[in-house]
Amino acid sequence: MDNSYVLAGDVGGTNLRIAAVSESGSVLRQVTGATPKTGTSADVIDLIARLAQSCIDADDTGLRPLSFGLALAALINFREGTVLSSPNLPQLNDLALSEVLSERLQVNVVLENDATAAAVGEYWLGSSKHSENSVFVTLGTGVGGGLILDGRVYRGIDGTAGEIGHICVEPDGHACGCGSRGCVEQYASATAVVRIVREILANGGVSSLAGKTTFSSKDVYDAAASGDIVSREVFKTMGRYLGIALSDLVDVLNPELIVIGGGAAGAWDLFIDHVRSEIDARAFRHPAARVKLARASLGESAGFLGAARAALDSLKEPVRGSAM
Amino acid sequence: MDNSYVLAGDVGGTNLRIAAVSESGSVLRQVTGATPKTGTSADVIDLIARLAQSCIDADDTGLRPLSFGLALAALINFREGTVLSSPNLPQLNDLALSEVLSERLQVNVVLENDATAAAVGEYWLGSSKHSENSVFVTLGTGVGGGLILDGRVYRGIDGTAGEIGHICVEPDGHACGCGSRGCVEQYASATAVVRIVREILANGGVSSLAGKTTFSSKDVYDAAASGDIVSREVFKTMGRYLGIALSDLVDVLNPELIVIGGGAAGAWDLFIDHVRSEIDARAFRHPAARVKLARASLGESAGFLGAARAALDSLKEPVRGSAM
Repeated sequence: MDNSYVLAGDVGGTNLRIAAVSESGSVLRQVTGATPKTGTSADVIDLIARLAQSCIDADDTGLRPLSFGLALAALINFREGTVLSSPNLPQLNDLALSEVLSERLQVNVVLENDATAAAVGEYWLGSSKHSENSVFVTLGTGVGGGLILDGRVYRGIDGTAGEIGHICVEPDGHACGCGSRGCVEQYASATAVVRIVREILANGGVSSLAGKTTFSSKDVYDAAASGDIVSREVFKTMGRYLGIALSDLVDVLNPELIVIGGGAAGAWDLFIDHVRSEIDARAFRHPAARVKLARASLGESAGFLGAARAALDSLKEPVRGSAM
Repeated sequence: MDNSYVLAGDVGGTNLRIAAVSESGSVLRQVTGATPKTGTSADVIDLIARLAQSCIDADDTGLRPLSFGLALAALINFREGTVLSSPNLPQLNDLALSEVLSERLQVNVVLENDATAAAVGEYWLGSSKHSENSVFVTLGTGVGGGLILDGRVYRGIDGTAGEIGHICVEPDGHACGCGSRGCVEQYASATAVVRIVREILANGGVSSLAGKTTFSSKDVYDAAASGDIVSREVFKTMGRYLGIALSDLVDVLNPELIVIGGGAAGAWDLFIDHVRSEIDARAFRHPAARVKLARASLGESAGFLGAARAALDSLKEPVRGSAM
């Protein structure tokens, strides 16, 4: 029996998960920790390395992992294995994280943007399994994305491709953390849904959410489901802007499938018709009719499963610049 | 000596050109005709076939072409070899043009969108020769585009990919022929430049172009070069909107190079700084710093040279659905 495995990790905003994954995608064992909010880069590296080591040590037969794929919510230089820009963990910026972890753990390490990793995960084991050309979008705190083109993950010249959340949908729109204005992330993320409700309430809008001091996008969804007009309109706005951005991608990439995941995808029934009608109204008729919209199926596992796949792929096609 | 050749054609809005091209990209001989403005699909097919046949007959040694690549200003189903939507020659819509021409000429025929063909041409012999990841944009009557991703032309699931001209830059903007609103084509094409000047003049704008009943984008360029403020502002608007669309692509595709061609690219010095500053302001810092902007180098030959390359490639990797 083949006991070989890779390590796969996902460094999220809240949790940090490391798992041992078989070549067929089974999770053999996993450990989780809280993502540090403070501390130096050494603290973060230490935590990742300790969790990874515990996953290695837990192997009864003493087998070493074939490789280690790590997904991060950050702009990554895939080929060099460096973190370019990590909004949640800025202490990792400009760090050759792949090399540092490789030396520490004595295993080849591959870094991947978390949304690109999720796109790979969904292509390997989830909703886009049978599509050679698909776009993955995740609607969470921000809007992330990943591209599967002609049967391969597409990363661009340095590995930063797939930043679908920063497609401009309002040239003079809401300021975005990326430095631009009117990015689709400012209209279609879970964060944006809450902000837009707040803006409407501040302008005297009447909503069942008016009395609450804090609420989440899930609360907006529940209010909309209970008939709150303002909340329903916000999901219409969200769907419209997401539809504009996806229309761009339908015309530019002619994908067979767009997979939508992330927390705010839970409001699917309230926004998807608006997304679809925007695509049908804006994109060319043939690629618009061709593209299917589907929900992601792997949930929060998509990222580390995609990282596992990237780790496996790196065995066949070594990543330039990875340390081992 | 190897005398083998492919046929390559480019059906433009005005001219129709067919050439015999060697495997190294030399144009051995070519014939041109006027693109028919009226007539049935049979008339258009007849003209293409006659020009192609004359290119075949002109071979002294009686050698047959290896393949025939034909670029058209149309949405193409590359794999099936059908014309999906041809704004200039609507009589070709829904026609299995590849099959019809294959039977008539007894040679394998590959159809390609003209801007995608130009992207391939520039990658084979022009400005993007050394870039594995590049975006090609052509600024003419409309705005077309083509993608070279990871060293290969990217066509999408059916072959309609690359429609960069229909990236939305103003969600409620100027109506576009494609059915959408605010496409970058409505702000950055040669046609758009003239329209925007007209709009400004209609609103009482003071310009040296005010007295003219008809003028071209070249006239607007000349006026701007002579200090006409309105004309200079129009190229600023053009550069801004083109920059917004290209920023989307920098974030989504992380290209090494963006090649800009087409007639309106002649106004390069008047718009390119605005394009660059928009990319620097909007796209992520790393991919923005990485991407170079360059002018196309093959001019009007890019399309049929790219069609020749597609014809050559089809010999190694047969296109599903092509008739022979």
